[in-house]
Amino acid sequence: MDDNAFREAATASIEEIINYYASLGQRPVVSTVEPGYLRKLLPDAAPEKGEAWEAIRRDVEDKIVPGITHWQSPNFFAFFPCPSSYPSILGELYSATFAAAAFNWICSPAVTELETVVLDWLAQLLGLPEEYLSTGPTRGGGVIHGTASEAVMTMMTAAADKYLRASLAADHAGFDALSEEEQEDLRAARRSRLVALGGGTAHSSAKKAAQVLGLRYRSVPAPASNGYRISGDGLRETLDKVRAAGLEPFFLSTTFGTTDTCAVDDYASIAAVLETYREEQRAAGHDADASDIWVHVDGAYAGSALVAPETRASMCPAPSDPNDPNSAPIGTAVLRRFHSFNMNMHKWLLTNFDCSCAFVRDRRWLVNALGADAHYYRNDYSDGGLVTDYRDWQLPLGRRFRSLKVWFVLRTYGGEGLRAYIRRSISLGERFAKSLTTRPDLFEIITGPQFALTVFRAARLTPDEAPEVTSQRTRRLCELINGGGKIWVTGTTLEGNTAAIRVMTGNFSTHEEHVDGASKIFVETAEKVLAEEKAKSA
Amino acid sequence: MDDNAFREAATASIEEIINYYASLGQRPVVSTVEPGYLRKLLPDAAPEKGEAWEAIRRDVEDKIVPGITHWQSPNFFAFFPCPSSYPSILGELYSATFAAAAFNWICSPAVTELETVVLDWLAQLLGLPEEYLSTGPTRGGGVIHGTASEAVMTMMTAAADKYLRASLAADHAGFDALSEEEQEDLRAARRSRLVALGGGTAHSSAKKAAQVLGLRYRSVPAPASNGYRISGDGLRETLDKVRAAGLEPFFLSTTFGTTDTCAVDDYASIAAVLETYREEQRAAGHDADASDIWVHVDGAYAGSALVAPETRASMCPAPSDPNDPNSAPIGTAVLRRFHSFNMNMHKWLLTNFDCSCAFVRDRRWLVNALGADAHYYRNDYSDGGLVTDYRDWQLPLGRRFRSLKVWFVLRTYGGEGLRAYIRRSISLGERFAKSLTTRPDLFEIITGPQFALTVFRAARLTPDEAPEVTSQRTRRLCELINGGGKIWVTGTTLEGNTAAIRVMTGNFSTHEEHVDGASKIFVETAEKVLAEEKAKSA
Repeated sequence: MDDNAFREAATASIEEIINYYASLGQRPVVSTVEPGYLRKLLPDAAPEKGEAWEAIRRDVEDKIVPGITHWQSPNFFAFFPCPSSYPSILGELYSATFAAAAFNWICSPAVTELETVVLDWLAQLLGLPEEYLSTGPTRGGGVIHGTASEAVMTMMTAAADKYLRASLAADHAGFDALSEEEQEDLRAARRSRLVALGGGTAHSSAKKAAQVLGLRYRSVPAPASNGYRISGDGLRETLDKVRAAGLEPFFLSTTFGTTDTCAVDDYASIAAVLETYREEQRAAGHDADASDIWVHVDGAYAGSALVAPETRASMCPAPSDPNDPNSAPIGTAVLRRFHSFNMNMHKWLLTNFDCSCAFVRDRRWLVNALGADAHYYRNDYSDGGLVTDYRDWQLPLGRRFRSLKVWFVLRTYGGEGLRAYIRRSISLGERFAKSLTTRPDLFEIITGPQFALTVFRAARLTPDEAPEVTSQRTRRLCELINGGGKIWVTGTTLEGNTAAIRVMTGNFSTHEEHVDGASKIFVETAEKVLAEEKAKSA
Repeated sequence: MDDNAFREAATASIEEIINYYASLGQRPVVSTVEPGYLRKLLPDAAPEKGEAWEAIRRDVEDKIVPGITHWQSPNFFAFFPCPSSYPSILGELYSATFAAAAFNWICSPAVTELETVVLDWLAQLLGLPEEYLSTGPTRGGGVIHGTASEAVMTMMTAAADKYLRASLAADHAGFDALSEEEQEDLRAARRSRLVALGGGTAHSSAKKAAQVLGLRYRSVPAPASNGYRISGDGLRETLDKVRAAGLEPFFLSTTFGTTDTCAVDDYASIAAVLETYREEQRAAGHDADASDIWVHVDGAYAGSALVAPETRASMCPAPSDPNDPNSAPIGTAVLRRFHSFNMNMHKWLLTNFDCSCAFVRDRRWLVNALGADAHYYRNDYSDGGLVTDYRDWQLPLGRRFRSLKVWFVLRTYGGEGLRAYIRRSISLGERFAKSLTTRPDLFEIITGPQFALTVFRAARLTPDEAPEVTSQRTRRLCELINGGGKIWVTGTTLEGNTAAIRVMTGNFSTHEEHVDGASKIFVETAEKVLAEEKAKSA
């Protein structure tokens, strides 16, 4: 493909992209292809001779687009959003152009330096404590991972390393003087007793991280009676239980906006319990660092909301002055008492997947755990300690130039534009929830609207209806809604096998008319489900 | 940014991309900015009001491009390549447009299905045994990771899981009937004795994977006397040593084309030693599966060369019929005796970073180790087993639509075009190496040319010159070359503290005139270094 062919192909692609977005409201949200559809349409092998772009372009339209589920559709109310935006697409375009492995500073200084700058910008926009900025007092900073899964896995890795260093040095006099093999034996044996904790409604990525890292994992209860969130009491109970079993807790994954219901863990009580735990451990002779359980705050989705200052109190509504119940809420300042935080700009901040931004209060924890050195990557800049080598903040070595799209998005929308978008999403959630409340005969809200997410179920026909009957009705409602092809929502199951439906109104393309359309579809379909039930029982 | 603004911005960007590539030969390869340059040029915070594209575009040219090291330059001879190509850029453009989290099939069937199809195409193009195809006899298949680091970490995770399942079940009667906690205790204790092995010249990613996963790691010797590769003898020695220390080897990371010298491990002898080891273990009463050490073949860079059939013998030159030394070499068929393989299309096959393609002989090993289930991700397609959910083949949950760019590249160039490119790279390597041999007074080739990589050093002035003197001369040569700004090469240190220079000729933009230019610069600079030495000693 020469310059002219590229110019022609790319110019045509741009028109197609514009047309694609313009057509989204008219397309069924979810692909309706059958499993295996594509293999039937494609040859068994790559072509021997190169093909012209025109043939490929046609196949995108004819063979790929039918197999696409349109996450950018205004009628996509499922999961969480996964936004694209024009400036972000331009970011990907330039990033692809400047392709580099970028595993250290000299590989392309702009890749490293822009990342540091825009993550400081982002931390400020989100109202994070200055400890999470690269310029802050505790050597903090941010890094862009692909996904929240990687962010959590990275933090868990660093937490295990931090805990093991501290506890081995404290418990074994002269540890540093032991042979490498002796150190390794002690470390491996100790590691086999570590246990990571995560909220009972935390995302599956926390458990998977432990599974991959070969670490034990226990859930902290997050019962419906507590709003599906974890609190100090449940944490204390779990800590005592694992300690009694001879295990050593070192890490707690908490959630600011769970996947199921956007619940926010009770950070004030969690911080208090961990403070007490630290004091007890120290009183029992344990090292201060080894008594410090690493708390990660996963705000993969809801973290984006923090650009709107009025949402920050929700992270920790407790008063900042314990003696004055009317003092300002602690809010995001509670992060000072924790260790790391992540949010996905690719979920709710107009930046293309992948873009999970993770912040840490002390970047040395990452470098200690993840630093690896090979002579062919050595250079004066890295050796001199003048520059950041993000390879030591993450699992892989190489990295994409992801900060470009972040920079384009932050500049194109500005703080003002991003806040307006978040506020619109939240207000659409309220609009949708309100529409449900006008029909208590059909719907019962379980949680929310919270961060543009409403979780509800079909109404009970009698107050003492068996829960499974309500759940069946809810599942049938969800099935018919998604089968109808006009909108897409997510069915889930909450504590006690309670079927529920999640409706998320965070897509950039979603406006009042789409939310009203969804409400109408819900009412009509719920009435249909009731009619079906009536017909069956008749 | 509305449709018109995007159209205008994107159209202008396309011209800039074309101009950027056209200008690469004239630009210094390596950025010459000082650490911290960018922060001085940018505001301290994101703008409050959105900015117009024109301001952003200007900043890309004025502030970002000076901080870019031009990996696509024809004068980039460093590390390994990290190619971009026009069809691949179009792939990224469409992938960004169809943005989706794509963690399961229904999230966008085309994302999953195209990946399966193009990785089968690629496996065929590379001449992999059919066991590595999704349609093959052993339930194999391929998956696209971001980097080789992730591929190796994923395979190591699966290998540990496979080994632990087999050995725990074999060694503990009634293991399945034990309580979850009892199983976990046995598993954790056993895991603490596992040891992963990797070649002494294997990429740092293998060691880092073990570090992250909390597994022990030992190097298998890959001495200069054996061409910097591992062989059966060294492996046997390492196996005996770790066994004697009470450790359990479960994984071996080998390399098809090491980073330093593009060495290829001696697979025939490795396979033979592992077969003997298995027999011994079984004779000693160990379970067959637990006696099977997982062998991963990391062909991150050189794997791409396999599209040219004449390179395949180099993977295993031993005769396929042990009784007939003239029979065809085993070649890639040796992978049948191993477990997994990866190669980075983003290194030498015209596909933008990130695109590391990993293949496995039995995909159940991955799903067993990495499968995680959360109710909000459940759906009929996944539950019915009809579809592939690649989230269970990788560390993260979500995934980008990377197969699009692979598809665009394979179709645009065809098998023919890719082979021609690889052959040109290799022949340019031979041309460069030949130029060195015409000046034995200045240069001494250490290895290669092998897969377009030549490793050499400054010539010794006398046969008995102290090695450190030659190394100092080599380092000075490398320093002056890279300081000159016209070309970029990599300095490294081989066994015995031998300084060496790596020159890689794999860039798509590199042609004969660039290689000849590099040769000329090397001759001139080497003569300058000798003159410097003379002046000093005078």
